[in-house]
Amino acid sequence: MQAQLIALDWGTTSLRAYKLAAGGQVLELRSLSCGIMQLPKTPRVINGRECADGFELAFDQACGDWLDAQPDLPVIACGMVGSAQGWREAAYCDTPADVANLGNSLQTVRSLRGTLVHIVPGVIQRSALPNVMRGEETQVLGALQNLAVDVSNELLIGLPGSHSKWVEVAAGCITHFDTFMTGEVFAVLSEHSILGRTQQQGAQFDGPAFDRGVRVALSADGEIGVLSTLFSARTLGLTGALSPTAQADYLSGLLIGHELSALAAVQRRRRNSGRLPSVILIGNSQLCARYSRALDACGFTRVTLAEQATERGLWQLALAAGLLDSSSR
Amino acid sequence: MQAQLIALDWGTTSLRAYKLAAGGQVLELRSLSCGIMQLPKTPRVINGRECADGFELAFDQACGDWLDAQPDLPVIACGMVGSAQGWREAAYCDTPADVANLGNSLQTVRSLRGTLVHIVPGVIQRSALPNVMRGEETQVLGALQNLAVDVSNELLIGLPGSHSKWVEVAAGCITHFDTFMTGEVFAVLSEHSILGRTQQQGAQFDGPAFDRGVRVALSADGEIGVLSTLFSARTLGLTGALSPTAQADYLSGLLIGHELSALAAVQRRRRNSGRLPSVILIGNSQLCARYSRALDACGFTRVTLAEQATERGLWQLALAAGLLDSSSR
Repeated sequence: MQAQLIALDWGTTSLRAYKLAAGGQVLELRSLSCGIMQLPKTPRVINGRECADGFELAFDQACGDWLDAQPDLPVIACGMVGSAQGWREAAYCDTPADVANLGNSLQTVRSLRGTLVHIVPGVIQRSALPNVMRGEETQVLGALQNLAVDVSNELLIGLPGSHSKWVEVAAGCITHFDTFMTGEVFAVLSEHSILGRTQQQGAQFDGPAFDRGVRVALSADGEIGVLSTLFSARTLGLTGALSPTAQADYLSGLLIGHELSALAAVQRRRRNSGRLPSVILIGNSQLCARYSRALDACGFTRVTLAEQATERGLWQLALAAGLLDSSSR
Repeated sequence: MQAQLIALDWGTTSLRAYKLAAGGQVLELRSLSCGIMQLPKTPRVINGRECADGFELAFDQACGDWLDAQPDLPVIACGMVGSAQGWREAAYCDTPADVANLGNSLQTVRSLRGTLVHIVPGVIQRSALPNVMRGEETQVLGALQNLAVDVSNELLIGLPGSHSKWVEVAAGCITHFDTFMTGEVFAVLSEHSILGRTQQQGAQFDGPAFDRGVRVALSADGEIGVLSTLFSARTLGLTGALSPTAQADYLSGLLIGHELSALAAVQRRRRNSGRLPSVILIGNSQLCARYSRALDACGFTRVTLAEQATERGLWQLALAAGLLDSSSR
């Protein structure tokens, strides 16, 4: 089957390359540890020239042979590759943002082999406390692709991660989003604070410890806020009420519980309704499983997972940008 | 003037030694960077014997000459020196705790020179989420010493620090307390998270940036919680609305604002009153100045600073333990 598009999901630590056929069908997927913060360094000859540029090296490694076989394949990329530290900065588009206006705002960089790489811009929300995303906008648009437009007002799209995003949509448009630094806060506390000193890595996910953390965040004790409840990950250990191997998952549940409890309150207020929206989760399956447990405890009863959101979003954006023959749809 | 007591405030990073005369008057104060996590290592002869024990070396350095001059001086110590990682573990006393029951629960260790060192136990509150303190109990008792008993029900004692403590008292007793990990969270985020990458050290405290952070925490935007508002320290920088030199103090204000906003809500609920208690702050004067600004913004209108709380507390505890002649009072 003939390829129609090379789609790159190029983040901070990893680079995934998709070779896509008509309709966005995935012919081949490659995962490389060539994110923009860990680019290859060994010089190599590309297109007859010695090259030491990390972006060129990673790009060639990811899909050079695909382009050798089909030199005219269009290329689209999303993620941190378009940041100020990326290959070429693609300035943020303002909310509301949809496939049409993002597709019309692609930035380009010409690679050494002459291929034009089209880079998807991130999205900025210029509220009193601004929010930004880069990469997640593509996943959200991919997840929306198969949905009936009229459900989207009752919908919230969640993208757990170092900086989790919660995205409100309307009529195929990203209208509003919030960021929580939960994942990064968990990582720095576990690695660098006193809480990490008594944590022991467990063999596997400790569901009861995680759920206990979530319950504490949602309880009357949790109303004192996460800066205070955090300390219980230490003191429950001191009193023998929480084993060393349970402490990391307890802390994870506590932080995610505080995130979702605040999210639920904000959603109820914004929607002026006791009814919480349906949730679609996008991302790493183990992290989505944690969020699913905690969402359920917080009263979000309708939660589903989106598959292949990134490649679908990149396909839609390439279509909107006119990179594909109309017969490819 | 004749010394009556050696009082040691022996924490994680520092050791302060007080030589006290009748009435607790300070004759001499020494500050050493010999906390229990950075004890001296170079062996030395103490009392005719080669010694490599860090606690012995630090103790001798702090007050060996005072004991040479007056070998029978009693010695009392508070702080992490009594923790499981300390010189001798002094098990926590339960709340409610006062001068009498803490003074009756001193742990002892005999030093190489034969001096008995009396160690003040910490305090534990066995609530659903337990809380512990070690060293702060002594400061609280010292601050209470000069107060009329009948004001204490309307009083809250704050001890800002890596782990700030907020202590409720009644009739000279520590009845309840809460811990917030605000200081340590600020440190790990500034040193190890993405927020630190764009921070530039300013020449001096940036009051307006700090106050702005406090205001955000107290605003409607702040209701989404600190895990989310944190991200504004980055995005306000990205949009040019917060200069690199203002970011650290903005983050500090944001975190302290979230701490105090939660504290105020909890205090109103517990006291079943819209009226917030008077506050006495104990600790580092620069940190207390930050907390004073933020307390004012949160509606705590009556805030004072306690002086010499540690040495006064140690003196009171030595008296209660019978270490001093009754003529010393």
